[in-house]
Amino acid sequence: MTETKTTGRVVLGQNNYGKSDVRLVKVFRDTRRHDITEVRVDVALFGDFTAAHVEGDNTALLATDTMRNTVYALAKDHLTGSVEEFGMKLIRHFVEAGPTVERARIRMTEHLWNRIVVDGEEHEHSFVRAAGKHTATVEGDGSEFSITSGVDDLMVLKTTNSGWEGYLHERFTTLPETSDRILSTVITANWLYNTTEVDFNGTWNAVKDRILATFTDHYSPSAQNTLYRIGKAVLENFPQIEKIHLSLPNRHHLLYDLSRFGMENNNEIFHADAEPFGLIEGWVERSS
Amino acid sequence: MTETKTTGRVVLGQNNYGKSDVRLVKVFRDTRRHDITEVRVDVALFGDFTAAHVEGDNTALLATDTMRNTVYALAKDHLTGSVEEFGMKLIRHFVEAGPTVERARIRMTEHLWNRIVVDGEEHEHSFVRAAGKHTATVEGDGSEFSITSGVDDLMVLKTTNSGWEGYLHERFTTLPETSDRILSTVITANWLYNTTEVDFNGTWNAVKDRILATFTDHYSPSAQNTLYRIGKAVLENFPQIEKIHLSLPNRHHLLYDLSRFGMENNNEIFHADAEPFGLIEGWVERSS
Amino acid sequence: MTETKTTGRVVLGQNNYGKSDVRLVKVFRDTRRHDITEVRVDVALFGDFTAAHVEGDNTALLATDTMRNTVYALAKDHLTGSVEEFGMKLIRHFVEAGPTVERARIRMTEHLWNRIVVDGEEHEHSFVRAAGKHTATVEGDGSEFSITSGVDDLMVLKTTNSGWEGYLHERFTTLPETSDRILSTVITANWLYNTTEVDFNGTWNAVKDRILATFTDHYSPSAQNTLYRIGKAVLENFPQIEKIHLSLPNRHHLLYDLSRFGMENNNEIFHADAEPFGLIEGWVERSS
Amino acid sequence: MTETKTTGRVVLGQNNYGKSDVRLVKVFRDTRRHDITEVRVDVALFGDFTAAHVEGDNTALLATDTMRNTVYALAKDHLTGSVEEFGMKLIRHFVEAGPTVERARIRMTEHLWNRIVVDGEEHEHSFVRAAGKHTATVEGDGSEFSITSGVDDLMVLKTTNSGWEGYLHERFTTLPETSDRILSTVITANWLYNTTEVDFNGTWNAVKDRILATFTDHYSPSAQNTLYRIGKAVLENFPQIEKIHLSLPNRHHLLYDLSRFGMENNNEIFHADAEPFGLIEGWVERSS
Repeated sequence: MTETKTTGRVVLGQNNYGKSDVRLVKVFRDTRRHDITEVRVDVALFGDFTAAHVEGDNTALLATDTMRNTVYALAKDHLTGSVEEFGMKLIRHFVEAGPTVERARIRMTEHLWNRIVVDGEEHEHSFVRAAGKHTATVEGDGSEFSITSGVDDLMVLKTTNSGWEGYLHERFTTLPETSDRILSTVITANWLYNTTEVDFNGTWNAVKDRILATFTDHYSPSAQNTLYRIGKAVLENFPQIEKIHLSLPNRHHLLYDLSRFGMENNNEIFHADAEPFGLIEGWVERSS
Repeated sequence: MTETKTTGRVVLGQNNYGKSDVRLVKVFRDTRRHDITEVRVDVALFGDFTAAHVEGDNTALLATDTMRNTVYALAKDHLTGSVEEFGMKLIRHFVEAGPTVERARIRMTEHLWNRIVVDGEEHEHSFVRAAGKHTATVEGDGSEFSITSGVDDLMVLKTTNSGWEGYLHERFTTLPETSDRILSTVITANWLYNTTEVDFNGTWNAVKDRILATFTDHYSPSAQNTLYRIGKAVLENFPQIEKIHLSLPNRHHLLYDLSRFGMENNNEIFHADAEPFGLIEGWVERSS
Repeated sequence: MTETKTTGRVVLGQNNYGKSDVRLVKVFRDTRRHDITEVRVDVALFGDFTAAHVEGDNTALLATDTMRNTVYALAKDHLTGSVEEFGMKLIRHFVEAGPTVERARIRMTEHLWNRIVVDGEEHEHSFVRAAGKHTATVEGDGSEFSITSGVDDLMVLKTTNSGWEGYLHERFTTLPETSDRILSTVITANWLYNTTEVDFNGTWNAVKDRILATFTDHYSPSAQNTLYRIGKAVLENFPQIEKIHLSLPNRHHLLYDLSRFGMENNNEIFHADAEPFGLIEGWVERSS
Repeated sequence: MTETKTTGRVVLGQNNYGKSDVRLVKVFRDTRRHDITEVRVDVALFGDFTAAHVEGDNTALLATDTMRNTVYALAKDHLTGSVEEFGMKLIRHFVEAGPTVERARIRMTEHLWNRIVVDGEEHEHSFVRAAGKHTATVEGDGSEFSITSGVDDLMVLKTTNSGWEGYLHERFTTLPETSDRILSTVITANWLYNTTEVDFNGTWNAVKDRILATFTDHYSPSAQNTLYRIGKAVLENFPQIEKIHLSLPNRHHLLYDLSRFGMENNNEIFHADAEPFGLIEGWVERSS
């Protein structure tokens, strides 16, 4: 890029504002067997907020504190099923509430709870936090919605049936090839639906199970190939999903060199390295 | 305290050194069904290290890098069961290895993995990280050991059967009383064994289940009373445990005021407050 | 969105891979007065990696371990000035090294160090970590580069000369208006250069100073207006900058209600709330 | 330890409760030049709380919410100088407020702010967060106090004048000796005063400067020796300090092996390793 002469006035570009980290817990207590939903909500509004930025004129701005109140208030009647459906409800509300709001985006992280099991029976009102998180991002103008669901913090590991061979060797390559290594990653997956008519919670569980099953079902020649296989398996089994993005940090487990002490290490003793990590990311989608 | 005249030479007081955050993964692959143990190990040595501190004389010091090597090397033959037993082995080694070492302390955090279940069957070599952690601290001089096991990051919540009433009211008291609230906490428990002849992994699971069961089994008038009941239940069921320390941060769930919007809130809509938090801590032990 | 019939084969979409969190420290020791640069580097490569994903064919893949080696090796001769220039060098290398690599992106976080001052003099080889971070993202195909520099973790606060009034009031609005509040935020700014001929370190310091000065120089009617004023001041003073993105989390400081105790609170005693937080984000740019 | 027969009733042992992470900001605005103090406060009360634990009888308990209110309310008139003095005031209050409270402990973390400098002048009411933290722990029964002050998060590095040689070599030792390495650590220091008649803020700054100066002033043969030298320098210069504890995690900077690429590495290119880390801890005190 060569230097270009700067011309033009200074103007406001793309912008948004909202309330982040609204921590909502709803208890469903209409029967003796209670349920809970815990979700952290980020609201972002998009539209024409030029007057506030340029003139300091707040008259068209919804306070972010009002957004917080709204999340709790609408949860009372409208958080009855999935967080995805709640997100659509929030967007319809915010697009109407803000005079210059054109679109809204609701990001949600649902923390999952299992019932505590006592003597083989699930307790009616006591819960223990589960691993993993259900994420969702809903965007829209109030009539059309883009709905992405995801899993986060899903840490997996296989002790064998994974390798890394046949890659390019050049001046700075020192890594030895292997046909038997530990493969470990923290899966972040996000899939876009092609419809709003979805059993969001049921589908979420089924997609998560499919991701886990695919992680186990093949020899992995690379994180890239495993990424593609997972994406393909999800798309082939869930026609309501248009595309899926996977982010796989490769949590390297390094074989510890015990030969210095006259000991063998037959893929038994590993150092789980904190950093650096390989990061493999990609979309798997339907061809048009 | 009134000012005291300072006298005396400057001397080295209590001190220790070691290696922290040694991340070890061991794969058990002698059968088709693999197992793994993942543990982060902190080594601390105690003894006479005056020469190093005062004179800069390192001749009696074990390098902390050597401690790291030792953890991986001894894991090969000696990490065969619980991390508690591995901790005793490490202590015996280090007390012998360092010429002026008198005692050692091994702190361990074991991360737990579940097998991935595919079509109802547990996979032979694929795992998904479980919630919660198994901690252990072993201290000793190589012949006598103090063994503490614990759970960490065990987040629990009950939606009812908990209250906070009848407490002291004074000038700065504004909190309303309630006989029905959410009780939520992240349990950190540490229990001291009175013997080294323990099935450490089996006992750990049984103690964790007992803690969870007790959390569910009573109306909680305070986190203090629940703390005591949990401790009592553990001691009454596990004679091999001498005493137990519990630390219960009270993760406040605040009823959101919907009356401002003309809505009722019948213990349904809560704000999960990040801070501040009540912190209730105590030992439950056997009287002598 | 209405349900659409799913058609089409499953294909690989946009993807990238690389090494993240490569922690590099370089010491400049050619004179008695040493210097250091500490930077964490994330490498991401873009291009045609279909064979690896779909066929499990790694022959065209550079190992991420090789990328790590490369960062350290190239730092020897080529990290001599700014991290931005080092980023361009890395991109030129990686685009050439990977047979199917078309573009690369280097994200860097430079941690800043001050010299320790002893008796009024800067020490020659001793440093203490400074607050704030210098970030940079360089992208390109090896001949054209897009260079973004930024500040991160720059926490600021003003005790007065800020308010929040005249905003929209509706059903869920409960926040009282104020013409005197604390304004506190953690500034994340990222600016895109319109040239590669820049004194990157000198400009970075000058932009940071301009951001801080603008934060102080006006009555802030909203975080939005302060965001715009900061962006405008930067663009007006730095013709080499094309546009700037600012992200301002509004770290709310809530006046604590002391009237319940018969005490006045004249904007003196505040609760620094952890969550939720307002998040104000936007670009300020040059009109075309 | 051999198995002992368990006897004795289950009883409550040592216990305490309180409120943690109370985030207080006080603005001093009596002149045009404002000042701020930001401190996070943890309150813990000690005494006879058996009735609450064992009987569920809360009548003698101060609510932790009341403790929070108290911190904010007392800050109005009593947080006028150092946080250490404020801690003593809080203890006097809580020992009196709780009918069965015998002692209290106040832990505080003060976040430090610098004034923003514009055109060479310090701004009157605008601040930027500084690196490092001022910690303090005050304990007492309301008439006698134990006061510990400290620094936390003080990250330092020297590029030379440090080595690690002459240590014990045994079976698991592989680390090469060096007379020139990077020494880097995050200093956590805590010193106990032998009097309450202290200029706490002035002394804190002077102790911090002494710690930094001592870090620079010698060839370091080990972190142990540097720890001792720092402690000795503080005790010799500050008669009001009885003893000091230092905790020095050794943030290893590993020389990157460039010889594999035919390149020399003359102590220039390092990997700043995240884990594991050496941890050197000890007291330096006055002999009696």
